[in-house]
Amino acid sequence: MTTGNHRFSDSDRDAVYRAIHERRDVRSQFLPDPIPTEVLARLLEAAHHAPSVGFMQPWDFLVIDSIPIRRQVQGLFQQANARAADRFDGDRRTLYRGLKLEGIVDSPMNLCITCDRSRGGPHILGRDSIVETDLFSTCLAVQNLWLAARAEGVGVGWVSILDQTELATTLELPTDVYPLAYLCLGYVTEFLDQPELESRGWRSRLPLSDLVHGDTWGRPLQGGPLAQRLTSMDEAAHRSRTDGGAEPGR
Amino acid sequence: MTTGNHRFSDSDRDAVYRAIHERRDVRSQFLPDPIPTEVLARLLEAAHHAPSVGFMQPWDFLVIDSIPIRRQVQGLFQQANARAADRFDGDRRTLYRGLKLEGIVDSPMNLCITCDRSRGGPHILGRDSIVETDLFSTCLAVQNLWLAARAEGVGVGWVSILDQTELATTLELPTDVYPLAYLCLGYVTEFLDQPELESRGWRSRLPLSDLVHGDTWGRPLQGGPLAQRLTSMDEAAHRSRTDGGAEPGR
Repeated sequence: MTTGNHRFSDSDRDAVYRAIHERRDVRSQFLPDPIPTEVLARLLEAAHHAPSVGFMQPWDFLVIDSIPIRRQVQGLFQQANARAADRFDGDRRTLYRGLKLEGIVDSPMNLCITCDRSRGGPHILGRDSIVETDLFSTCLAVQNLWLAARAEGVGVGWVSILDQTELATTLELPTDVYPLAYLCLGYVTEFLDQPELESRGWRSRLPLSDLVHGDTWGRPLQGGPLAQRLTSMDEAAHRSRTDGGAEPGR
Repeated sequence: MTTGNHRFSDSDRDAVYRAIHERRDVRSQFLPDPIPTEVLARLLEAAHHAPSVGFMQPWDFLVIDSIPIRRQVQGLFQQANARAADRFDGDRRTLYRGLKLEGIVDSPMNLCITCDRSRGGPHILGRDSIVETDLFSTCLAVQNLWLAARAEGVGVGWVSILDQTELATTLELPTDVYPLAYLCLGYVTEFLDQPELESRGWRSRLPLSDLVHGDTWGRPLQGGPLAQRLTSMDEAAHRSRTDGGAEPGR
């Protein structure tokens, strides 16, 4: 039994990395074309195959086509967003107000992925120490769907500027069900080369080499070669950005 | 501009779905072979390219090789696991005790992905309404790494049966840094056909068609074709399981 036995072919492996590196949070580039049934079914199945604590599968999926409901959710966004803008001052507030942060009605459909916090009863294997692992599992389902969507050419935007209690009321959720992710889905005119908050100067990508520690917090990596490799990847990414190009695919 | 412009080729798309469907939570199949520097660097870069609220990038990565530290963490697991076993009765407790739930020392390395809850200051774009979005972002990084690892032939197991306060002390984390995911990584003898908790009879996979709602909770899907498609996928998966085979790749 060798270590290479279960590795994907190079081209299949590169396809997985491509989905990871070219995935974007989409707000402004939605096309109105509907997502075909087959594609949507594959995306939902991808989400449903996420890992979950104790195989709890706490997620549900609300496929939201209704324009009146989407307008209500957009209203919740506008209220929350007005409050959020007030947290910033001066140029930062101007920049914030110029950002488009949702595509609730522009996109052809919305999808709310919820977490049923009582699914499977009070004792879930693996959830005793950290009760929030059900929410974490639901996040893993979101990312499965997000990456599968990129492969399908479908853009996804996560709208997090929403009061969750009001959102739960709008969507008629039962008491134990938490609306974890409110997503906008649709085909797009383009996937941007960089995250929009990066290209608009809101915040920069952190050097990866600054984020990797050895054994315990703040200790240097034991493996000199790994530290060197991460630093050279950071330098390549920096060069690529300052040349005005996209980030490299890897 | 047509909707198909940004779609992957069929084979690249299938590679992404293969990673999603063949990913497993690995506890028992680890090989001792070290993960090469190049592979580990690609996995960390994949995690670092997750979406994050306000481009906050709240994650750090502790690459844990030290056997003494891993033994300490294993001790924390054993304490938490003994408490957890007592939550179950009779056959269920016997089954629980027979499950192997961690590969902390069997795997060649551990990786703790943390969330720095104060990164970027008190006001993070998109985080005002839901302060936990930093934790959620970190989960998305975990899933990026988990899927990339599958493509590399590397197994990942998430150990959630740990007291997080004690774990933070062991790893010398600063006050604002939360140890979100404690992972075991390594090449494997095999990736199981089904999640172990499913094949061991702990819990069954839920029919996807039961989890999809239309517009609001509990309402049937507007799209009859989608409901039909989900039901036929559930039936195919059920037939495949009762035939004793693996779940279909899709």
